[in-house]
Amino acid sequence: MSFRASESLSEQIAQHLAQQIITGDLVEGERIQELRIAKELNVSRGSVREALLILARRRLIEIYPRRGAVVSEMSAQQVRGLYDVVSMMLQVIARKSAENWRQQDMETFVAQVQRLQVLVDENDIEGFHEASFEFFRMSYRFAANPYVEEILEDLQPAIRRSYFLALHADRRELEESFSFLKGVVDSVLLRKGDQAAALVEDFCVHQRNRVLDSLMRVQQIEVAWAQRHRR
Amino acid sequence: MSFRASESLSEQIAQHLAQQIITGDLVEGERIQELRIAKELNVSRGSVREALLILARRRLIEIYPRRGAVVSEMSAQQVRGLYDVVSMMLQVIARKSAENWRQQDMETFVAQVQRLQVLVDENDIEGFHEASFEFFRMSYRFAANPYVEEILEDLQPAIRRSYFLALHADRRELEESFSFLKGVVDSVLLRKGDQAAALVEDFCVHQRNRVLDSLMRVQQIEVAWAQRHRR
Repeated sequence: MSFRASESLSEQIAQHLAQQIITGDLVEGERIQELRIAKELNVSRGSVREALLILARRRLIEIYPRRGAVVSEMSAQQVRGLYDVVSMMLQVIARKSAENWRQQDMETFVAQVQRLQVLVDENDIEGFHEASFEFFRMSYRFAANPYVEEILEDLQPAIRRSYFLALHADRRELEESFSFLKGVVDSVLLRKGDQAAALVEDFCVHQRNRVLDSLMRVQQIEVAWAQRHRR
Repeated sequence: MSFRASESLSEQIAQHLAQQIITGDLVEGERIQELRIAKELNVSRGSVREALLILARRRLIEIYPRRGAVVSEMSAQQVRGLYDVVSMMLQVIARKSAENWRQQDMETFVAQVQRLQVLVDENDIEGFHEASFEFFRMSYRFAANPYVEEILEDLQPAIRRSYFLALHADRRELEESFSFLKGVVDSVLLRKGDQAAALVEDFCVHQRNRVLDSLMRVQQIEVAWAQRHRR
């Protein structure tokens, strides 16, 4: 059996396309044509098809019988559902981290917080976005739960997409995200699991609302445009 | 694009193999040979390979570079992790069901509880096992959260496997599972979401412990056999 080779090529294609969806280069409702992608990247259609199945599982695209692959929408219901699940998973991790961290983990955490601080000072949104996910991934293992890890891995592209939107929707989100992450690390280092989990819960509600607001603003703009067009 | 056709064949093969793992016909550590399965079922090796990837995602098998596909073990850590996640997801569903059920849903719930009661009276473990999952699936939609649904769908084979083990490990589990399900439905119909969620939590801990107990008993038997062999 040789899953590895084929998996990693389609995984690479999937990540390439995922990045375009996350950063908004591909917008919701946009078609993704198998043949065009295969030509652009000089890969087989089979690899692209596998990549699309991966993206569908990660909820970045929908596959329809005749229309083919389409970038999935970010509906209010989906955003609510996503943040509810992410909040539960991150609360598990926060509690378990507070319980299980050892002396040697402390430096890594503190160093990552310092790195995030620098990125905030430089107002480097893309860098901060990326470094936040490195931070999440570092903390997965404290949950010691393969299911939690896998769920977060599968949801990560959807989270990246809405987190990217939140960071770009309002300048304050960068500072707010940082102070949240710092607060969680402080609580974890003090072994205050409940406090860390409560911070996670609050922040998820806060960011969910910011994403919902900006989705609503986009809709209002679309409605305004449609009305203008009708005149 | 034609995902449908190929997906459904590999999905069928995956379900066929999943059933054998769930019921213990295929035991942990057992190799699953691609070629043998392809011949047995008269399908292409490609379809079997896809089916194995599905089973790996559902955590029923592990795929190793040279050894190929092997039925995954049920370790204590995995069982704990599984029930933690399942408990969280089912608690969301219990709360949302209590909030959102309408008059027309009531009859379906009550009818399913009556069906389960008959299966308990007939001591039909397989039938009860199957009907419990129909019941869970009926209730997914009340969560109105596509992520929760998908997570439970993906975890379902692993849940089926440990639930099957629990029902066979102790005669009392049949009665206990029924009284749990009935209790949750009663709480939901009274719109007592907290009470329903608390029942879910307790039952998940109870069943997890029963599964852990029987895994430990199996280990003890293995150790005893190994010692006997050494004499």
